[in-house]
Amino acid sequence: MLRYDTSGLYGRDGLTKSDVPGGDDEQIRKAVEQLYQRTESGELGFMDTPDTSFEPIQAWADERLHEEWKAQLVIGIGGSSLGARAVLSSALPAHKRGLDTYIADNLDPETVDRLFSFLDPKTTLVVVITKSGTTVETMSQFWIARQWIADAVGEDRADRHFVAITDPEKGELRKLVDQHRWFDFEVPSNVGGRFSVLTPVGLIPLALAGYPIDELLAGARDARDRHRQLDDAAQSWGVAAAEHLMLAEGGYQQLVMMTYADRLQGLVDWFRQLWAESLGKAKNRNGELVNVGITPIKAVGVVDQHSQVQLYMEGPKNKYFSFLEVEQFERDRIIPESPNMPDALAHLQGRRLSEVFAAELKGTRGALAESGRPTSTWRFDRITPRSVGAFLFSWQMITAVAGEMMDINAFDQPGVELGKQIAHGLLGQDKTRKFADLARSPSATGTKTVLQVL
Amino acid sequence: MLRYDTSGLYGRDGLTKSDVPGGDDEQIRKAVEQLYQRTESGELGFMDTPDTSFEPIQAWADERLHEEWKAQLVIGIGGSSLGARAVLSSALPAHKRGLDTYIADNLDPETVDRLFSFLDPKTTLVVVITKSGTTVETMSQFWIARQWIADAVGEDRADRHFVAITDPEKGELRKLVDQHRWFDFEVPSNVGGRFSVLTPVGLIPLALAGYPIDELLAGARDARDRHRQLDDAAQSWGVAAAEHLMLAEGGYQQLVMMTYADRLQGLVDWFRQLWAESLGKAKNRNGELVNVGITPIKAVGVVDQHSQVQLYMEGPKNKYFSFLEVEQFERDRIIPESPNMPDALAHLQGRRLSEVFAAELKGTRGALAESGRPTSTWRFDRITPRSVGAFLFSWQMITAVAGEMMDINAFDQPGVELGKQIAHGLLGQDKTRKFADLARSPSATGTKTVLQVL
Repeated sequence: MLRYDTSGLYGRDGLTKSDVPGGDDEQIRKAVEQLYQRTESGELGFMDTPDTSFEPIQAWADERLHEEWKAQLVIGIGGSSLGARAVLSSALPAHKRGLDTYIADNLDPETVDRLFSFLDPKTTLVVVITKSGTTVETMSQFWIARQWIADAVGEDRADRHFVAITDPEKGELRKLVDQHRWFDFEVPSNVGGRFSVLTPVGLIPLALAGYPIDELLAGARDARDRHRQLDDAAQSWGVAAAEHLMLAEGGYQQLVMMTYADRLQGLVDWFRQLWAESLGKAKNRNGELVNVGITPIKAVGVVDQHSQVQLYMEGPKNKYFSFLEVEQFERDRIIPESPNMPDALAHLQGRRLSEVFAAELKGTRGALAESGRPTSTWRFDRITPRSVGAFLFSWQMITAVAGEMMDINAFDQPGVELGKQIAHGLLGQDKTRKFADLARSPSATGTKTVLQVL
Repeated sequence: MLRYDTSGLYGRDGLTKSDVPGGDDEQIRKAVEQLYQRTESGELGFMDTPDTSFEPIQAWADERLHEEWKAQLVIGIGGSSLGARAVLSSALPAHKRGLDTYIADNLDPETVDRLFSFLDPKTTLVVVITKSGTTVETMSQFWIARQWIADAVGEDRADRHFVAITDPEKGELRKLVDQHRWFDFEVPSNVGGRFSVLTPVGLIPLALAGYPIDELLAGARDARDRHRQLDDAAQSWGVAAAEHLMLAEGGYQQLVMMTYADRLQGLVDWFRQLWAESLGKAKNRNGELVNVGITPIKAVGVVDQHSQVQLYMEGPKNKYFSFLEVEQFERDRIIPESPNMPDALAHLQGRRLSEVFAAELKGTRGALAESGRPTSTWRFDRITPRSVGAFLFSWQMITAVAGEMMDINAFDQPGVELGKQIAHGLLGQDKTRKFADLARSPSATGTKTVLQVL
């Protein structure tokens, strides 16, 4: 079960009930309708991803699990790895009885070298994920992996170590797949990276790890189908999206997602990308400069009570909060009774840690409410593949509806191109050479010694 | 070597050179002078922490390393663990030849239970760190650890498993230390948690892990002493602090610290607490309501180029950036040459990953500069105990000077009290019972089902 309680967004300094439109609002209905139309026309694919046929993926993964593989090395970055990482980190050990999973996303040379030094190329399956096939980080690591495997097992036998997940037709990785006998799966053309967790992008690594992908998909499907009727979708996802936009208009431009469950930390990282990349846009669909976006901020309870909550309570009123709450944990400990227990802590004796943890969440949420900060809560009865699937789909819907309402393109990311071109230019690529100069402009140098500290 | 380049903070939409005061500015000099006076009077201790005498700590730790211990379990949260965690995560394997280190900070019952199930109580030394001695999370875990050890080795032999680091005079943990024969070390009374990494709070766990604490302290000391003269301190730390405050006044209320080195991620987490808790304040020292604070945001390059940079480039102009750059990594890999390399990636052949990584940093920084976003860079020649020590001290100084200039108390955290009281009230403590109601106020419930997702 997964419930979303937005009542704390309303009140003294937050939203006013009468100001927030209902599901019958024209703009909200239109936004949802547009999404549905774009889905029906085939332009947008994410709403169909919960229907991804899991049997062929599961069957293929099960075959691999009967082979000699011990580990999978997933090479992918951003939307190509955040989904699988999030779901896997939410899993119980019982859900990870497949291959040990290592994800190579960052290009930190020490991290990459350590990974390749640690893993055994003979028993490692390499899953390469990039929709475009030109992602520098992924392809750099792919070529290193390719040589690493070939050095260990020979060129002839290297191919069977690779699984490629990429666009069905376009891109450099697709060309390579066509030249080699690699396993390959498709990222649907109409599904972008950050909306792709329920496609082979997320499902292949998860299935190889032994995760029950059927249940994950079922949870997402249930969340979608429960609110699929236009009226209901407008009232649920539409109003939820509207609340975010009204908060942002009211000066709350930072959304802190604070999880009180370590297993949900990966979902917050996944959400960060979805929210930032989809809604952080310079221009609207008319080409007008709008520079919109709400900053997603990750926080972890209770740790950040001792780090960020001071600022959240007393700093500028520019943040609102989304708590992730879990009603039932799978393991627990009891604080023992002791004759030496100080009076100030006597009431803790005999309490389960989960009770203390829950009280801390309620304390933080209550204190923020008391200080006039808007809060909402995602309440998981338990962290299961179904509730995780429902969470993933919910945020995809809310984000997509918000994008429609903002009249922006929530499915592109034009702002990352310039940085890529500068990097390519610096690395000697001819066609981008002129961009390299931008790295040396006075406001970008980073090479002056303004302050020598050591 | 550690250098700080702020030239990218100036330019089109950032600061203007002529507006930013120099080290001869009255307000800046006064702020630094006040800090020095409060240090000399003994009121503030953090500036003296680089002088912490490491020999007794090292000698004590070395003795322990000759005993039967295999692991240390550090129980502490916020400032009691973030420092040691940050430094340890920056360390090379060669700097971690002591005990395996596990840090219990979060109270997630599954995480805590897993830790206690995994570790062997017979060979685990438990380091309990809380200045006040009443930190709920720490003391809850302490009592569980106490029983866990006693069950394994007997009550008689349990005491020698414990090391307490707490206030020299006050608090519940100090009282317990006085009753038992535990090892104990002192947190200086005039040093708060988030400024305590260079006291036994950070140094004991680090020394037990085998980390060279003498070099860490030396780096901090060098950074302090290099800019200790009033003129120089005003020109270095003072101007740096002023730049932050002027950016915030100009609408840049989010500071993104983006590390291009995985080993520096822990330092960003440490910084997040220092910056948020010190400068996020409701009232100034005259008691006037000011609600100030700059939100610290952690970002990791290159990963967040594929997650957050779209928003950073195109979203609202409310963020500025502090890059952590490393000139020389300790390990590397080369992207191999291949006859199958696509044209679009041909220029990567033969490049070291560190070159690509550096180009990506420069690309991102250059692109942000081009889009008018203010950037600065902390440039480490290498990640060493000295450069890490210098980084820690630098940020403590900049933060403390900024607090003085803002006329707030940078050393307290009154905003976290209410949440604690509500939590204690919910857990049945008599004196806080009345606060429990705040968790049930209409704007704080979190228990309604506004939207049933699954």
